Amino acid sequence: MSKAAVLLSGGLDSATAAAWTRGAGFEVVALSVDYGQRHRLELEAARRVVAHLGISDHRIVTVDLRAIGGSALTADITVPKDREEIGGDVPVTYVPARNTVFLALLTGLAEVVGASDLVIGANVQDYSGYPDCRPEFLRAFAEVACLGTRAGAEGTRFAVHAPLLHLSKAGIVRLGASLGVDYALTLSCYDPPAAFVHCGRCDACRLRRAGFAEALVPDPTTYDAA
Amino acid sequence: MSKAAVLLSGGLDSATAAAWTRGAGFEVVALSVDYGQRHRLELEAARRVVAHLGISDHRIVTVDLRAIGGSALTADITVPKDREEIGGDVPVTYVPARNTVFLALLTGLAEVVGASDLVIGANVQDYSGYPDCRPEFLRAFAEVACLGTRAGAEGTRFAVHAPLLHLSKAGIVRLGASLGVDYALTLSCYDPPAAFVHCGRCDACRLRRAGFAEALVPDPTTYDAA
Repeated sequence: MSKAAVLLSGGLDSATAAAWTRGAGFEVVALSVDYGQRHRLELEAARRVVAHLGISDHRIVTVDLRAIGGSALTADITVPKDREEIGGDVPVTYVPARNTVFLALLTGLAEVVGASDLVIGANVQDYSGYPDCRPEFLRAFAEVACLGTRAGAEGTRFAVHAPLLHLSKAGIVRLGASLGVDYALTLSCYDPPAAFVHCGRCDACRLRRAGFAEALVPDPTTYDAA
Repeated sequence: MSKAAVLLSGGLDSATAAAWTRGAGFEVVALSVDYGQRHRLELEAARRVVAHLGISDHRIVTVDLRAIGGSALTADITVPKDREEIGGDVPVTYVPARNTVFLALLTGLAEVVGASDLVIGANVQDYSGYPDCRPEFLRAFAEVACLGTRAGAEGTRFAVHAPLLHLSKAGIVRLGASLGVDYALTLSCYDPPAAFVHCGRCDACRLRRAGFAEALVPDPTTYDAA
């Protein structure tokens, strides 16, 4: 069975992407990144998803992006709540070059385990304006992976798969539900008030909640009552 | 003065690249990466170079590439000594996707400090077969930086400069000497036997030593007497 290297944050999207990868016939090698994020509980969610999906190779790489800063997720900037409109401008939760860093690490892992397929749960519709979720970025990154690795120099053609790229959040929820993903194990919230409790008010929570509602799939999430 | 973000390992090449950047009229913002490398003393060398060149903004980002492994520099694989021939095949000191990871971090830093020029001391002649030092890789990465960042989405054109790319090691030494670089502060050795002592036998030491000899520049390096 071919291996695929999958970025697994522990959120709804990446859990769905991992399930999609398994469903497509790959052996999943999962990579989670501990990058000093405010919502580090998502790493625990990633471990739960790994157990749930029966993934046997899961690496957690620590990279301290706080030394770079520049984001509400990695510096002392407040996570916005109850924004009027989600989308448009790049929000303060944007982490400079995050997906470039994550895909670079994933490329290294793929090379070590002998995988040429990289999978990321990036999504254009509700990426809240993050530039590093755009399809042209993902295509350019695949070229970098081919050129910047020993495997690539020896002929491996790396591909970056973003199976959720053109799905709405509701579409993602429906896809995951059809693949048997237990979303109760996942964590989307940027600023969880307690372990596995979602604040319900940050962009990520609001998109998640609306996704379940629109998909007509029961939402197993615990949202903060406050 | 425009800022440029420079990868500074603490080795001979990156110290020269930083001096070149300063000489080109940029304000240097330096990034060193603590990636679990066997030769972590190079971070101390980086600090010495930063002080020497009067760089006021130096960030050290920790990323634990040992969780990925696959290299003599980050896993329990022996660093080769006294190799018959340097060059040709990719050696075991190749770190999977290292320059991709480093340039990704550099891109994040550049975005935070408002720099659009990225500088790396990559070098084609004596890169010992590392694929991620090739010019086509560096060009492809610049495209990723443009596409994967907020600054890029807003019109910034990132450029990746590799001022040493086509220089021999002797050429690098000559360039650095002309720029006043004090190479006694730098560390190239992959496996230093003691603080600021070079083993003299790994690929990096042998290339360094030959570079000074060929450049007819006095070599200030302390090589292991053993």
